[in-house]
Amino acid sequence: MGLAVELALRGRGATAPNPCVGAVLVSGDRVVASGWHTRYGKPHAERECLADARAKGVDPSGLTMFVTLEPCNHHGKTPPCTEALIEAGVARVVVGARDPNPVAAGGVETLREHGIEVETGVLEQRCRDLIADFLLWQNSHSPFNILKMAATLDGKIASSARRPEPVSCPESFARVHDLRSKVDAVVVGGNTFYADNPSLTCRKQGLPDDFEQPLGVIVTSRLPEDPARFTLLRERPERAIFMTTREAAVSPRADALRSRGTSVWPLPGNPGALALPCGFERLRYERGCHYTLCEGGGRFALALLNQGLADEVVHFAAPRILGDASAPSAYSGRGHIPMAEAVNLRLVDVELSGDDVMLTLRPR
Amino acid sequence: MGLAVELALRGRGATAPNPCVGAVLVSGDRVVASGWHTRYGKPHAERECLADARAKGVDPSGLTMFVTLEPCNHHGKTPPCTEALIEAGVARVVVGARDPNPVAAGGVETLREHGIEVETGVLEQRCRDLIADFLLWQNSHSPFNILKMAATLDGKIASSARRPEPVSCPESFARVHDLRSKVDAVVVGGNTFYADNPSLTCRKQGLPDDFEQPLGVIVTSRLPEDPARFTLLRERPERAIFMTTREAAVSPRADALRSRGTSVWPLPGNPGALALPCGFERLRYERGCHYTLCEGGGRFALALLNQGLADEVVHFAAPRILGDASAPSAYSGRGHIPMAEAVNLRLVDVELSGDDVMLTLRPR
Repeated sequence: MGLAVELALRGRGATAPNPCVGAVLVSGDRVVASGWHTRYGKPHAERECLADARAKGVDPSGLTMFVTLEPCNHHGKTPPCTEALIEAGVARVVVGARDPNPVAAGGVETLREHGIEVETGVLEQRCRDLIADFLLWQNSHSPFNILKMAATLDGKIASSARRPEPVSCPESFARVHDLRSKVDAVVVGGNTFYADNPSLTCRKQGLPDDFEQPLGVIVTSRLPEDPARFTLLRERPERAIFMTTREAAVSPRADALRSRGTSVWPLPGNPGALALPCGFERLRYERGCHYTLCEGGGRFALALLNQGLADEVVHFAAPRILGDASAPSAYSGRGHIPMAEAVNLRLVDVELSGDDVMLTLRPR
Repeated sequence: MGLAVELALRGRGATAPNPCVGAVLVSGDRVVASGWHTRYGKPHAERECLADARAKGVDPSGLTMFVTLEPCNHHGKTPPCTEALIEAGVARVVVGARDPNPVAAGGVETLREHGIEVETGVLEQRCRDLIADFLLWQNSHSPFNILKMAATLDGKIASSARRPEPVSCPESFARVHDLRSKVDAVVVGGNTFYADNPSLTCRKQGLPDDFEQPLGVIVTSRLPEDPARFTLLRERPERAIFMTTREAAVSPRADALRSRGTSVWPLPGNPGALALPCGFERLRYERGCHYTLCEGGGRFALALLNQGLADEVVHFAAPRILGDASAPSAYSGRGHIPMAEAVNLRLVDVELSGDDVMLTLRPR
């Protein structure tokens, strides 16, 4: 099932609004075929896996399939996977997570009615984590927001002078660009935008020719005086969106941005406490964003966490120590609170990333 | 060799001033016997491994031994291990690190002269890391100092109110007490001592009856006014040592501490910049400390790093975020410096520790 989870993740970002799913066909102790849902509109993981078996000359009848999500039971873009499994003569199906979608669910029962042995709940938490995006899309109007941070062991994301200097290693840099390749928007706070002047583009090697760069979104109460100073606003103004206060959104600076093709969206709330959910929901319903990558700075990151908008946190811990208390922190903006009121996350994955450690966390 | 490294670590703390060493005997792909240097004065890992083979009725002749350190070649507390390997008829010896001790080295050559096939440099960096303590003891007068920190993802070790509240999880707490069981002294800075009033004892389950608690050492320019207020000074004053300024060491407070049996050692340097190497060297030559565990706070931790005294850093990253920039950091005390001047460490191990991640780092 661990392998099925790995395979599922290969489809992540391309299957939206479907969940990513992985499947492996096992004979005895040996994996004989595998598949995953590669892209929205393409066959589901179970059918990809059966096709892989056929291509390898393997007869799936009597074998066991591991699949991260309960096989679907309805006619959608593709016919039900339960049908394919029954026709193929698979003897046993091991399921990670049950399908939370009432329309598609019931696959387990259908399989059992046809004499297939079914086991459920294997690596359930990991398989449920795989479909957290799908659950969110079904139960809210928000995109799935991934908060990415890179910090020293003392939690610093830059020096006090805020010069754009790398904190993490080249491998982690490449991983960030891989993440950017899978999202529809890259979002930053105003401090980061003004200090770093980022392009917010994906610069991953080997992107397809028709790759569309993610939207560049800036959350700030201050709009720029001179848009042409900023790379993003110079290079692709029509792909940039400012989320700002209602007041700033009707200012002459807002008009100047709009005249260049840049969007300026008003958010309710005060300058230091903009109501971010409205902006993120608009990203989804107006721009079709299913995933965003939020890249700080510290105040924006903590605002996301406090407003329950960080659906996944990817934290790169670099094995270095700045030791300057005045330097900006990865997460900042709360007053004097006791440790018991810290934001507690759940660690779901730890990976080495070059010299760094990459932690993946989810809300508790 | 990975297994041999794991075994070696079981002896860590007890073999001083010998290095910890692990060995496994392999027949084909199978490990048939294993051993490690358990305690100073006891047989070396190779002899323990051969004894294990004999106990299991395995004939070592013609087999392969993996050993983390080059077998010794001289008569010390025990006869040379090379002799034992030759007598046992071992066919091949795979060595992790060469012995840096010129008296004991030459084992590889002796084995080869007796027709044993020898391979060296397997998992060399990990095997060299195993004997970093031994190298330090041979080349300096300092104990091997392990700096332990537990921090949130934003690098905070406590709330701004500095109440003693746990940052890490119970499993990490247990690991810290396991570390305390293996060291000769637990060292803290003054801020931590005065804020937390720690006992600095090892409270690991199942300690032997004759277990001697580590020394409790406080590095501070301020001596306490009322020693009886502090747990350590009340419960075991004669096992406590203050390292302080030359001025403070001749003050009435110092005399009051000494009258209770507590040691007060003067260090050269100013209050904010005590010359720590002198104090640590004295811990070794006067009190026989081979290992210390330094437990912060942030200023003391960074002073250790800056003075090149943190030989290993064990950093527990708790999956939580405080977000209060004014709370104390895990490493602090440097002024405004660019990121390029951060202290860079080398990550040697990552382990899950309950809800936390435990990073082990070494100087670069």
